[in-house]
Amino acid sequence: MRIRVAVNGYGTIGKRIADAVVRQPDLELVGVAKTHPDFEARRAVERGYALYVGGDGSPAGFDAVGLPVAGTVPDLLGRADVVVDATPDKVGAGNRRLYDAAGVRAIFQGGEAADVAEVSFNALANYAAARGKRRVRVVSCNTTGIARAAAVVLPRWGVERWDVTLVRRAADPAESKKGPLNGIVPSLHIPSHHGPDVRTIFPDLAIATVAVVVPTTLMHVHVNHVRLRSPPADAAALVEAFRETPRFRLFAPWEGVGGTPQVMEFARGRGIGRDDVMENVLWQEGVTLEGKEAYFFQAIHQESIVVPENIDAIRAMFDLAPDGRTSIGITDRALGLAGR
Amino acid sequence: MRIRVAVNGYGTIGKRIADAVVRQPDLELVGVAKTHPDFEARRAVERGYALYVGGDGSPAGFDAVGLPVAGTVPDLLGRADVVVDATPDKVGAGNRRLYDAAGVRAIFQGGEAADVAEVSFNALANYAAARGKRRVRVVSCNTTGIARAAAVVLPRWGVERWDVTLVRRAADPAESKKGPLNGIVPSLHIPSHHGPDVRTIFPDLAIATVAVVVPTTLMHVHVNHVRLRSPPADAAALVEAFRETPRFRLFAPWEGVGGTPQVMEFARGRGIGRDDVMENVLWQEGVTLEGKEAYFFQAIHQESIVVPENIDAIRAMFDLAPDGRTSIGITDRALGLAGR
Amino acid sequence: MRIRVAVNGYGTIGKRIADAVVRQPDLELVGVAKTHPDFEARRAVERGYALYVGGDGSPAGFDAVGLPVAGTVPDLLGRADVVVDATPDKVGAGNRRLYDAAGVRAIFQGGEAADVAEVSFNALANYAAARGKRRVRVVSCNTTGIARAAAVVLPRWGVERWDVTLVRRAADPAESKKGPLNGIVPSLHIPSHHGPDVRTIFPDLAIATVAVVVPTTLMHVHVNHVRLRSPPADAAALVEAFRETPRFRLFAPWEGVGGTPQVMEFARGRGIGRDDVMENVLWQEGVTLEGKEAYFFQAIHQESIVVPENIDAIRAMFDLAPDGRTSIGITDRALGLAGR
Amino acid sequence: MRIRVAVNGYGTIGKRIADAVVRQPDLELVGVAKTHPDFEARRAVERGYALYVGGDGSPAGFDAVGLPVAGTVPDLLGRADVVVDATPDKVGAGNRRLYDAAGVRAIFQGGEAADVAEVSFNALANYAAARGKRRVRVVSCNTTGIARAAAVVLPRWGVERWDVTLVRRAADPAESKKGPLNGIVPSLHIPSHHGPDVRTIFPDLAIATVAVVVPTTLMHVHVNHVRLRSPPADAAALVEAFRETPRFRLFAPWEGVGGTPQVMEFARGRGIGRDDVMENVLWQEGVTLEGKEAYFFQAIHQESIVVPENIDAIRAMFDLAPDGRTSIGITDRALGLAGR
Repeated sequence: MRIRVAVNGYGTIGKRIADAVVRQPDLELVGVAKTHPDFEARRAVERGYALYVGGDGSPAGFDAVGLPVAGTVPDLLGRADVVVDATPDKVGAGNRRLYDAAGVRAIFQGGEAADVAEVSFNALANYAAARGKRRVRVVSCNTTGIARAAAVVLPRWGVERWDVTLVRRAADPAESKKGPLNGIVPSLHIPSHHGPDVRTIFPDLAIATVAVVVPTTLMHVHVNHVRLRSPPADAAALVEAFRETPRFRLFAPWEGVGGTPQVMEFARGRGIGRDDVMENVLWQEGVTLEGKEAYFFQAIHQESIVVPENIDAIRAMFDLAPDGRTSIGITDRALGLAGR
Repeated sequence: MRIRVAVNGYGTIGKRIADAVVRQPDLELVGVAKTHPDFEARRAVERGYALYVGGDGSPAGFDAVGLPVAGTVPDLLGRADVVVDATPDKVGAGNRRLYDAAGVRAIFQGGEAADVAEVSFNALANYAAARGKRRVRVVSCNTTGIARAAAVVLPRWGVERWDVTLVRRAADPAESKKGPLNGIVPSLHIPSHHGPDVRTIFPDLAIATVAVVVPTTLMHVHVNHVRLRSPPADAAALVEAFRETPRFRLFAPWEGVGGTPQVMEFARGRGIGRDDVMENVLWQEGVTLEGKEAYFFQAIHQESIVVPENIDAIRAMFDLAPDGRTSIGITDRALGLAGR
Repeated sequence: MRIRVAVNGYGTIGKRIADAVVRQPDLELVGVAKTHPDFEARRAVERGYALYVGGDGSPAGFDAVGLPVAGTVPDLLGRADVVVDATPDKVGAGNRRLYDAAGVRAIFQGGEAADVAEVSFNALANYAAARGKRRVRVVSCNTTGIARAAAVVLPRWGVERWDVTLVRRAADPAESKKGPLNGIVPSLHIPSHHGPDVRTIFPDLAIATVAVVVPTTLMHVHVNHVRLRSPPADAAALVEAFRETPRFRLFAPWEGVGGTPQVMEFARGRGIGRDDVMENVLWQEGVTLEGKEAYFFQAIHQESIVVPENIDAIRAMFDLAPDGRTSIGITDRALGLAGR
Repeated sequence: MRIRVAVNGYGTIGKRIADAVVRQPDLELVGVAKTHPDFEARRAVERGYALYVGGDGSPAGFDAVGLPVAGTVPDLLGRADVVVDATPDKVGAGNRRLYDAAGVRAIFQGGEAADVAEVSFNALANYAAARGKRRVRVVSCNTTGIARAAAVVLPRWGVERWDVTLVRRAADPAESKKGPLNGIVPSLHIPSHHGPDVRTIFPDLAIATVAVVVPTTLMHVHVNHVRLRSPPADAAALVEAFRETPRFRLFAPWEGVGGTPQVMEFARGRGIGRDDVMENVLWQEGVTLEGKEAYFFQAIHQESIVVPENIDAIRAMFDLAPDGRTSIGITDRALGLAGR
């Protein structure tokens, strides 16, 4: 019997999670909740997703444009084993009581504070920690990216210190109202919140993060500088470790991928849906080792990178897979990530 | 028996035409030619496209990265009934001799001068004119957009005068080297080349076009102002005419599509491949009629709008369909445009 | 005796008007009002401008950072003959009662509705209409640009119809929070508000305006298409008319000014303060005449173009100059516009 | 008697150096050389700068637009004691022979390799090293920014290791042809060339630099992470050290300067010419100290930061000042940097 999944919030993350759920062999999408009708709501209906009214929306708004709704969020929760909360940042925490009242388990996103859930989660890093839990928080896109990389590096060579400069995209592609149009805005509080957030998963990691916001919509880029405890002989070992790990995609120099515009071009032609790049993207040429000091860039697709993590979180909560690698394998094959 | 199609040039347009050809019931892709290996070349191979070396490329370059090539352009031409030239602007004309020597018919893109071919083509506007021709030129993205609109408006209400301000995207999404980053660059020659180019299809249309370049990669936007000879009673008639015509996509106000960022978001989730929007995109709310003066905006996806036109051009040249509407219907169903 | 001028609002427009007032031979700046302390407030103090607290600000906020304030807006009004309201859009109208109560004359900006004042004003177009008035509205940047051009064209050749496509900058350079970052957003209501606003100055002008917003901060660009009643023999006559009119700046092809980035580079080195370009900027090469149809581009610097108009408005209200051209001459010499 | 200075190359850097030279009490500008006529050439003439034809230009081009030229580069060199080479990157080295033949001393910019000159120079860091030299290279904008910061930190607290992530602007404001429009492009070679370049000044500094290019024109932003040998008690000591050093400008939180757009707004109203910010710009709030680990952001105005360094280089070469601090004081007062 499949686990019945509700998705509350149908924006950038929610719509992707819904699409990902329907592709999984062991999950069933019972419906999605959206506050207002728009082309995405119509498309949800066209895809056969049961549409519920969430937030401050009303069924009348959907009726007016001919979109059938199946009820409101409490109705949706009544049909689900677990709800994935993909509402805007800080809204999710307020929904927790509702989920508890309905007796459904819940997954929250990284925009919520860590104490919204029993555990903060990343599939490569701490899959086992979410087993059997009723409330799990999938960390944010940037934290996910760093946690994955740490899950590769830490067990192999140890880490004395990890520094990341996060060069952040200013807005998502479909957001017309955010800037800056021309300029760089540093996040003046150092460390940025990402470092402490990584420690919700790796409590002992000596990590410091600094962030700047730049005028692009496509992807974040992390500049990583890691001092290894026991470094390998050369950078090729680093490249190999990343390459053999799921959810990492490395580009070779001959592939012609100079920056995030070309990564997205790669993604657009990939055929897994939207322009999604759910893996950490590394440039092989940029992986550098000087003594104990390792450097690498990684590009993080803020819109989609947490999607497979949400799927794995469900699997962990309901103990549907023997371990994280198995769950990741199921998820990635279902999403078409493997081998592309 | 299917018509055997070669695609020479595997960039923005060529790769899309190749994908479109393989989806057609009456066409067969015999191969694609590319000058240099990159991730797109690898993907072509993964998709099972026979890869040939074109332009100034050499097989050794492909060998070095493990990509098998089937030969060079003359080899490719020897297996084809028709070649679609999708090489960079002004390169196509130089290839004509090669195509003639091989005895293959040829389609050129709008970056070539009109005299490269016997006829300049748009499926809605002059399908019949390409019937049986050996060399056809599919007009450029902007000209295609205007020609389609003229094909709707002219026969219904007549046109006294058509003015278009083209607000042009500065570069395609995957081009990292073009600007301007922050500024508007007018094309000082008035009329811009687009007006005369539309007249290669509608020789008698009184059209004037003016262009400016702006810092975006997504789509062009045309501001159309048309003085009708015999206007309808209201703008609703215009809306209806566009809505009932294939290759037009109108957004209603409730759909939440305010500008090109949201059009692309619509496209990303569509599932027809890449972020393609092969239709003229209109905003219902922006279609305006004041007396004889009609106004409407249309967004034109420079990367993909000519793709279905290339397919129809092949069908016209080989007389594979009884008329343009039939060909358009076949093409659009195959591409997934109809009903989305 | 100099007219005593207060400036209420010290943002993009207000700070420029203050600087312009102090340069005029017949005006005196009695103070500026600002809501919150920042580097601009400190600079106002450094320049010797008396600083008053406006809006929802409090003197304590200024005290805390060591900036001396001379009082609040009512205090400021008590020392002035006229106040220039440069508060944000729609705030100005609410201030009118305050100005009336203080018995001061007032100038409002184009962000207010036309009925905020007795007359809407442009110095080249209707200087005389503001004579002796107590409340004058200086029209917005785009309307100012069009009104100036109409003031050149209308009396010389008559206008059957004037169409403008406004390609609008999305945000001012110092605004970090506005988008779109990558995209074009059409203003779907046609005509845009600019056309009707021009008619507050030229009531009989047959004008239609359409606007799109693009991701740049520098300048707006207008694409003008004017059908003349009695056209001149050639475009050179148009060029000459613009060239001989104050507040127009034409660039010749050899000057290397291809678009707004180069206009701003011109402005940066000019030495009149900030990067201001208070004139309509035209490209000589883009001025085109085909029969009765005239075309020209003009770039409009949204931050500064209304500044000299505010000065002339004061002069008209207090009858400080015999006519508009005389006032314009005084203003422009004082601002350093003439001959640069 | 003033030192006679020629400026060869009149682009972004050259025109600023010319303006700076004429403001110095002990220097005289004998002329500037430019290849092609444009508005900047006209302005040079208007400012009374003798104009010479450089590079591949010809006097005829200037004659055609009515700009008087005084000769060619050899003529210019014949009137000078020193030439500042501000030609494009890698062109300067080729000019060395010409300068040697003319017997003039020469200053080169950071776009040339270090061996073009006897010494690489920064006024705060190694003024004395350029004394009496015949050929001096002023390091590039980014290297200048780092060298200045190192000149503050090194002597006070020592440096175990200095890491910089350079978030680089993609093009200058007046360049219309460079991208990327939307995306981040990492410089895959690690370390970037900046680290080794800093060591032309501080040979023993353990520094690593990594760079990414982002779509903005205004300023670079450096994210600095410095491990101090003997750290001070708190970050306030760092702030104080930067604040008391010339060519540093710190913004306090209340000043409202969130990012580079607001830094430039500050610069635009400053009145020292163009939008120049010749100082390293730091945000007080971003200066952080955790144990031995110091962090700070600095914004670097690529167009102007090397201008005062060129002036000081001249003074060092001709021994016009007793030491660097004295020269800096003269330069900065002349340029209007002090106290603004």
